[in-house]
Amino acid sequence: MAQTRDDRYFASDPSQRQMARTLYAQVKDLPLICPHGHVDPRLLSAEHYNWGSPVDLLIIPDHYVFRMLYSQGIHLEDLGIPRRDGGATEKDHRKIWQTVCDHWYLFRGTPTSLWLRDELRDIFGIEQKMTSANAQTIYDALAERLQQPAFQPRRLFERFKIEVLATTDAATSRLEEHQKLRDSDWHGRVIPTFRPDAVVNIQPGFAEQIRLLSEVSEIDVSDYRTYLTALEQRRRFFREMGATATDHAALSAYTGRLSAHEAEAIFQRAMKDGASAEDARRFTGHMLIEMARMSVEDGLVMQIHIGSSRDHNPDLLARFGRDMGADIPTASEFTHNLKPLLDLFGSDPRLSLIVFNLDETTYSRELAPLAGHYPALRLGPPWWFFDSVLGMRRYFDTTVETAGIYNTAGFNDDTRAYPSIPARHDVWRRVSSDWLARQVVEGIIDEEDANEMIVDLAYRLAKQSYKLEG
Amino acid sequence: MAQTRDDRYFASDPSQRQMARTLYAQVKDLPLICPHGHVDPRLLSAEHYNWGSPVDLLIIPDHYVFRMLYSQGIHLEDLGIPRRDGGATEKDHRKIWQTVCDHWYLFRGTPTSLWLRDELRDIFGIEQKMTSANAQTIYDALAERLQQPAFQPRRLFERFKIEVLATTDAATSRLEEHQKLRDSDWHGRVIPTFRPDAVVNIQPGFAEQIRLLSEVSEIDVSDYRTYLTALEQRRRFFREMGATATDHAALSAYTGRLSAHEAEAIFQRAMKDGASAEDARRFTGHMLIEMARMSVEDGLVMQIHIGSSRDHNPDLLARFGRDMGADIPTASEFTHNLKPLLDLFGSDPRLSLIVFNLDETTYSRELAPLAGHYPALRLGPPWWFFDSVLGMRRYFDTTVETAGIYNTAGFNDDTRAYPSIPARHDVWRRVSSDWLARQVVEGIIDEEDANEMIVDLAYRLAKQSYKLEG
Amino acid sequence: MAQTRDDRYFASDPSQRQMARTLYAQVKDLPLICPHGHVDPRLLSAEHYNWGSPVDLLIIPDHYVFRMLYSQGIHLEDLGIPRRDGGATEKDHRKIWQTVCDHWYLFRGTPTSLWLRDELRDIFGIEQKMTSANAQTIYDALAERLQQPAFQPRRLFERFKIEVLATTDAATSRLEEHQKLRDSDWHGRVIPTFRPDAVVNIQPGFAEQIRLLSEVSEIDVSDYRTYLTALEQRRRFFREMGATATDHAALSAYTGRLSAHEAEAIFQRAMKDGASAEDARRFTGHMLIEMARMSVEDGLVMQIHIGSSRDHNPDLLARFGRDMGADIPTASEFTHNLKPLLDLFGSDPRLSLIVFNLDETTYSRELAPLAGHYPALRLGPPWWFFDSVLGMRRYFDTTVETAGIYNTAGFNDDTRAYPSIPARHDVWRRVSSDWLARQVVEGIIDEEDANEMIVDLAYRLAKQSYKLEG
Repeated sequence: MAQTRDDRYFASDPSQRQMARTLYAQVKDLPLICPHGHVDPRLLSAEHYNWGSPVDLLIIPDHYVFRMLYSQGIHLEDLGIPRRDGGATEKDHRKIWQTVCDHWYLFRGTPTSLWLRDELRDIFGIEQKMTSANAQTIYDALAERLQQPAFQPRRLFERFKIEVLATTDAATSRLEEHQKLRDSDWHGRVIPTFRPDAVVNIQPGFAEQIRLLSEVSEIDVSDYRTYLTALEQRRRFFREMGATATDHAALSAYTGRLSAHEAEAIFQRAMKDGASAEDARRFTGHMLIEMARMSVEDGLVMQIHIGSSRDHNPDLLARFGRDMGADIPTASEFTHNLKPLLDLFGSDPRLSLIVFNLDETTYSRELAPLAGHYPALRLGPPWWFFDSVLGMRRYFDTTVETAGIYNTAGFNDDTRAYPSIPARHDVWRRVSSDWLARQVVEGIIDEEDANEMIVDLAYRLAKQSYKLEG
Repeated sequence: MAQTRDDRYFASDPSQRQMARTLYAQVKDLPLICPHGHVDPRLLSAEHYNWGSPVDLLIIPDHYVFRMLYSQGIHLEDLGIPRRDGGATEKDHRKIWQTVCDHWYLFRGTPTSLWLRDELRDIFGIEQKMTSANAQTIYDALAERLQQPAFQPRRLFERFKIEVLATTDAATSRLEEHQKLRDSDWHGRVIPTFRPDAVVNIQPGFAEQIRLLSEVSEIDVSDYRTYLTALEQRRRFFREMGATATDHAALSAYTGRLSAHEAEAIFQRAMKDGASAEDARRFTGHMLIEMARMSVEDGLVMQIHIGSSRDHNPDLLARFGRDMGADIPTASEFTHNLKPLLDLFGSDPRLSLIVFNLDETTYSRELAPLAGHYPALRLGPPWWFFDSVLGMRRYFDTTVETAGIYNTAGFNDDTRAYPSIPARHDVWRRVSSDWLARQVVEGIIDEEDANEMIVDLAYRLAKQSYKLEG
Repeated sequence: MAQTRDDRYFASDPSQRQMARTLYAQVKDLPLICPHGHVDPRLLSAEHYNWGSPVDLLIIPDHYVFRMLYSQGIHLEDLGIPRRDGGATEKDHRKIWQTVCDHWYLFRGTPTSLWLRDELRDIFGIEQKMTSANAQTIYDALAERLQQPAFQPRRLFERFKIEVLATTDAATSRLEEHQKLRDSDWHGRVIPTFRPDAVVNIQPGFAEQIRLLSEVSEIDVSDYRTYLTALEQRRRFFREMGATATDHAALSAYTGRLSAHEAEAIFQRAMKDGASAEDARRFTGHMLIEMARMSVEDGLVMQIHIGSSRDHNPDLLARFGRDMGADIPTASEFTHNLKPLLDLFGSDPRLSLIVFNLDETTYSRELAPLAGHYPALRLGPPWWFFDSVLGMRRYFDTTVETAGIYNTAGFNDDTRAYPSIPARHDVWRRVSSDWLARQVVEGIIDEEDANEMIVDLAYRLAKQSYKLEG
């Protein structure tokens, strides 16, 4: 009655399931295109990488995991998350692992449980379920595997069939790990992504970030004009190092042009820590337009990630810092907010702007209609909380009828959890297969079309949208 | 495994599909009620209508088609869309058709692909798929059919079993085509709809529109009072010409009463091109209430279409004009916005107010609760981007539990693409059948109820909501 | 083909249905936990309760029923709803019942129709459908049953297997009915809930409410300080009377701390009927934080019900008063609005804050991410318009992947219609079984997990979330 493992995430209906199997078979072994994510390049630049313990690998870096445990009253200290003040945290990783397994039932029905189940099984060969009873056995098995050469990041890269992996890097990064990779005799394609948030979004420490920008660009950034020049220089450097894309995060999708005079004035205030919140909002909105202009000129694909209210829990921020699972989505607006940018570049064939968002209501109402009209616009795949079986189905349900699939950017895993990469792509490929299968059995598309579309969704669209064909 | 054509848009589950077939069989051949749409009355007033080429018929007037092609970088000039400045556009319709077919894969999964597939097959007898290879063969077949008397608009009207077709007409129209129709010996029921947007929504050219209003009404419109009198005169004229409804488009559902003094002041400013955006917003909000008041008095059903941000792409507007596929939805609000109007007329049995919107979130949150309470309010069918298989399912899913189906206005096709009318109604009838079938097989309604409901959805509700029984 | 009664609300797919049956079998006979609702305690405090007629039981108190009839032009007077001015209303309950049955088709597809069908069948043994023809026969059967001792509220309480039932009571209530219950020799567990809206939300009559508060608390409430003391006293009293929870309704989820000085100033203005709407909004936002603080101290679970724009129809309010089916949801926001409260108490293990809302878009975007992070926060079940088969499915679909089920509060029926309680729980148990069954057959969870989860959803989560284990 219950699903076999091979058919997971496929509908129970026999016709749909059979069709989903057929479609999935065509893509399950295709190489992985990973054009956006947060894998640490040191994993791959290191000849020999030390994974640490299973907890170092799977728990401490994964805010999906510890946010849920936190929500049920488990302290981050007890999960070994390092405190900013260096205060005491649990050091016994076996004990942490036991705590996680004791509470693993919390993850029932979540994508985290699917990814980890697949990782354990497919990568580490562990078939057991994470339970209190199994905790130490699983820990042992994992710890043992992590020592083996076959589990070194580069070996996994090959085993995962990653065709290209993009990291995300600060605009001020010297990309030293990427340089090491280029200098090495290993030939996996790992490329940087230009992420200038820290030098574009005005917040405490901005002046220090600009100082860093001066330093790495070797351009004395003293005003708005030299600031732009330095950014252009960094983009050039990133391109030389293989980047094909930029990435920008903002709370809202607001765009709006400032006069050169206004931009200069806000920049100067920001350098003296005197910019207001409204200054910051307007500056970011202006710089998104400037970044689009630079993309038109240098060809870097532009990504924007909109709608996360970061660091919602001030106590956690104070004790542990950023990215601690306390980022909460907010309602977003694109129709009015993106208009100033689109007025300038929306129909420019040189711009490719990929939009990610955390407000699902904008898909059918704003983003699919926008992407179904403007040549420059593409919809990014479902992001973060929506990178899930049901999230993907809703994404297809609310975008394809208006925008088709050819105004989307395929899939990207957006993960910092390196071993979860194959599992995440597999969920996408399975859900895509199942969604197309339903379209076929309901007579909306025919099999011939579905056969094309599944390869587009699983592989081609990402490659093409991020200009990775080269 | 895949769906047969006869079962399209029905669930794959055998029980549900069987029930859907049974329900659909009861309505598939019922006459079509077309109470709202944008068919050009000249098609039907002309004794002999010249369709032009297949591109004139299917591409140039259809913004659903060219918006998608535009989104992938195809210039509207290359699709033969006429420029406002008379600049060069592609004149070779065979070449245009080839371009469309070369890119037809873009429409996979969209309602446009379903409609056109059905039109080719059911109206023109063309079973082939639109592909690069088939393009010229299909063009030939279409061109040949369009010359035949059987494909004349009046013959199609009869073949489609259209019981009544409402056009949409400017308040200043003299309805000359409708007069021709009344004077002809052809007896298809074609009626006008009173659409006063151009004389109600203050925008550039308003004074000229009011001059036209004076002219056609033979009332010297010099102030707010004569303006209302002229509008009442036009409504009377439209009613005499068979109209049963009005139609109003607005960006927001804002309603709010102005004092006579304020209304006069704004009107006068507007006549001198001196009205502000806020003036315009308040005037439209006031006039929606005035129009409701007039509907209470003269019995015309009132339609409002809310939420489209028109002409989002200024470059396209400048080159090609309005309705070029660059209209983008925005978030809408009804609970507060409609309250002033509903306070006055929401429980008046003489008012019938049908609401259309482009923000699906308002269905479960605002519109179904409002329609499930106020006697005057009815939900229009899913509009524009949501006139689709999945759009309709979401509409039923989010409205029926709160409002039932008897506070809805059934279906209307809202199309300017005359030959797509049967296909659009067929999608609705099929999706309705399938949705009710699911309700039956899940034990929510019984077959007896479903048998009533399917006829209501496919035929009776539209006829009754638009007072077309006469 | 159609569903048998035993399988209602289960998917038609045979695998999913079989699994749903298996899961449902484990919970269908579990006791009912009713931690939030509006049952009149007099039903149960009375040794012998007089139900009145079938119309007194099923129509006059049920705004779900009469709102729909009103929406189709039936006057509330004709349904026997009492007018505030004592004006004439229909007194012939047989005639009212006939009117209801004549229009029962309006409820096709609504939860009201499901609940009433189940009530008639399971409680009163009436298998007939409510139709014009059957109206009087059903009336006779109901009237006859209502006279029987077996249909007395206390006997139904036992027959329904209610383990605990919470009523909702004004902060100024002396809980006399609850005292009677405690003094009686009947041992059903009926507990009060502290609902201080009338003494917290500033509106006309506030001073009178505060006077009442002084009277029942025996604390002379003359300023903000004594006001807080009196509220604390009432909470203590409610706890002594068995309460485990409070409940708060507000249009928005706005929270924000006032200085003691500001709170005092607004309080004094309110006492003199001089508070503005903005005063009221800020005072409610402040008091929600104060109430959270008190919950931290006294352990009462805190419920908030957000988003209903009450009494939308002024004419109905004037003629019939509140709760007349004219409450309309509005868009809600939680990420920013709850932050001030969560900054203070969101991670406090002593607080349990259960959130209900009427804007489904907030589930995936705000509430599930918030509940999946903050220890204090739990999601209430789908409320009001969404306490329905499809509403529950959407709730699971949009919350579980992010928050899991262990950050939810299980089910509560929230009803004033006492005999509908079992039907409402049964819908939840069936839809939960079916939803989990789908997760199993699609390979997302395994059967072992589903077996735990169904009991959690049907029984344990509500008991634990409302601290009813004692």
